[in-house]
Amino acid sequence: MINEKMYGLGDEPSAIRELFAYGLARKAEIGAENVFDFSIGNPSVPAPALVGDTMRELLETDPVPLHAYSPAAGLPEAREAVAASIAERYGVRATAAHVYLTAGAAAALAASIAAVTEPGDEVVVIAPYFPEYRTWIEAAGCTIVEVPAAVPAFQPDIEALAAAIGPRTSAVIINTPNNPVGAVYTRESLEALGAMLRAKEAELGRPLYLISDEPYREIAYGAEVPWVPSIYDRTIVCYSYSKALSLPGERIGWVYVSDSAEDGDAVTVAVAGAGRALGYVCAPVLLQRVAARCVNEPSDVAAYAENRALLTEGLSALGYEYVEPDGAFYLWVRALEEDAQAFSDRAKEFELLIVPSDSFGVGGWVRLSYCIARDTIERAMPAFAALKASYAG
Amino acid sequence: MINEKMYGLGDEPSAIRELFAYGLARKAEIGAENVFDFSIGNPSVPAPALVGDTMRELLETDPVPLHAYSPAAGLPEAREAVAASIAERYGVRATAAHVYLTAGAAAALAASIAAVTEPGDEVVVIAPYFPEYRTWIEAAGCTIVEVPAAVPAFQPDIEALAAAIGPRTSAVIINTPNNPVGAVYTRESLEALGAMLRAKEAELGRPLYLISDEPYREIAYGAEVPWVPSIYDRTIVCYSYSKALSLPGERIGWVYVSDSAEDGDAVTVAVAGAGRALGYVCAPVLLQRVAARCVNEPSDVAAYAENRALLTEGLSALGYEYVEPDGAFYLWVRALEEDAQAFSDRAKEFELLIVPSDSFGVGGWVRLSYCIARDTIERAMPAFAALKASYAG
Repeated sequence: MINEKMYGLGDEPSAIRELFAYGLARKAEIGAENVFDFSIGNPSVPAPALVGDTMRELLETDPVPLHAYSPAAGLPEAREAVAASIAERYGVRATAAHVYLTAGAAAALAASIAAVTEPGDEVVVIAPYFPEYRTWIEAAGCTIVEVPAAVPAFQPDIEALAAAIGPRTSAVIINTPNNPVGAVYTRESLEALGAMLRAKEAELGRPLYLISDEPYREIAYGAEVPWVPSIYDRTIVCYSYSKALSLPGERIGWVYVSDSAEDGDAVTVAVAGAGRALGYVCAPVLLQRVAARCVNEPSDVAAYAENRALLTEGLSALGYEYVEPDGAFYLWVRALEEDAQAFSDRAKEFELLIVPSDSFGVGGWVRLSYCIARDTIERAMPAFAALKASYAG
Repeated sequence: MINEKMYGLGDEPSAIRELFAYGLARKAEIGAENVFDFSIGNPSVPAPALVGDTMRELLETDPVPLHAYSPAAGLPEAREAVAASIAERYGVRATAAHVYLTAGAAAALAASIAAVTEPGDEVVVIAPYFPEYRTWIEAAGCTIVEVPAAVPAFQPDIEALAAAIGPRTSAVIINTPNNPVGAVYTRESLEALGAMLRAKEAELGRPLYLISDEPYREIAYGAEVPWVPSIYDRTIVCYSYSKALSLPGERIGWVYVSDSAEDGDAVTVAVAGAGRALGYVCAPVLLQRVAARCVNEPSDVAAYAENRALLTEGLSALGYEYVEPDGAFYLWVRALEEDAQAFSDRAKEFELLIVPSDSFGVGGWVRLSYCIARDTIERAMPAFAALKASYAG
């Protein structure tokens, strides 16, 4: 028989993807310039020139070794480049043996969750959260436990998190800079989180893993993005070049298990085992070579910073309420009615594609991706004004 | 706590990978030319020129859309190219809606197994079999049921398979051309298998899926490689460009759910859902574009055919017993003692790296990969002679 759970996952595409697909159809219908698509997180700045240059250079080499299998954990030179970059940027000891190259952050998270949980365990997330966390947590046979972020800044609510952690808790997932709210967790927040987790480990007599999902690490607007393993030993960092190098479709990222974690060697082995069980043989090898070369290439944040200013100033002038974003390229805006789906549906009437907050685990908000063309934001402002006016009556 | 099963999978690399790693170390020690490495299935012929040309051409286009996310099932043009190629080559109706692009055959198999099984089900394989089948079957919570192939030709043993199929059976996995034995399943074998499965479906009152793992489809030496969905409706083909286009490290392949399967639409949905649960977002997108362009590019089988002749003639002259291979690039050779591991270990003394059969689910044989340089085969012959002589005493 067909597996019903898998059928359900295939049959219910995410709200984001659904809106994105609607947008494609609507653009074909009325012209791309007349649809204001804030739905999806596809980077709008090109990959750095070094990416293309590296690929072109590699394509001049012998294709047999170039495209051959790499070891399951990745090419030694790619693992070493990642470890060296971590060591240099964050002033820590980081070894290549703790780096596992993956097909993006999704693969990194799926493998990390499977590595440090047993079926029946609980994994704590901070709502609003990236919807696929639920998918991967449940795929590992675990239960997702949602803890609302602390308003108004959407930092971790340490007391609420402490209350949610119990004898079945294996891990806590954080995402900073955050999708969907754009918050960057402060050093103070992370230190409080680390201290609480250490206390809970002592209280419960079991390890608690902190899985730090960091695809937006490089996309920050001046705020410090602390290195989490320096704050909490038992940290597993899940990273991706999707946003840092604008390569989302190429699927390249990594897991780094902190060298400070007492059981870090064993966790690294389990991550590799989980990757194997999930059907990963190695991360795409051409992209491993690109990552090795581009590991310290700066991300182009300027375009996103401009969009952020334009969007927040525009919506502010119109009286919209939103969370000031310190990172990533999303704006978290209060819906003008309680039902976020209804608000998103009404926005469609003004050709505004904005994602309702429900699939992120909270009601009453919408997410606007501003990794889009600058002029789309400018031209969308009258539509946002009209949307607001439609609620004034 | 660390998941023990995942730790175990990470801690016990496959016998193949282990021997491959030994080979790398040994080559560094005594010189690459003095080690005869028949361990791993890394293609030895270069990717067709069209692969590199296509990549170079793509790299001249706008990098933002080039590297953007594709839909989860793949770029429409890639899915359509695969479906059109299937329709044309095998004279069947094949729709793009039933094609799901994957990160190679491993991802295709992991998703297909998860899609058509429930935990507790049984999946039947034909021994000897690719060792990772066990990993993916057990990852789906199922039990592997091994049925020995019919000797001496290593075709499916229809009666034994029928006896192994019961009320908990969800699927049968076949692999033709076969790794490790090089057998190509004949039309007669496949028709008998199809008829038996249809009878079992009627008897048990449940669907039985035939998962056809076909990374070696293009590597055949004259034998017909029948299109399995034309013989059995409820077939799921798992394909890879790893061998066909010599791109094993790049991770690109597909699942095709037969358009003739009564529940094919639903199975396709479940495969996509399983891919999502396993952490796949989309197959590497640059490679999707390459596959779309190269879908009908012929594989370079001539080099493997030469190696096959050289190796079989050489071993034949020395009195080794082996299965005449009709496809793939492996030779299945009878070990000169019952304990295949001991035989493989003794071969190492002659710098011959050959994989013992145990991890393939049978004892008493070894697998020789002949996707290697021609002169390695030539120079290995005295070592094979000495290995044989060492058993003569």
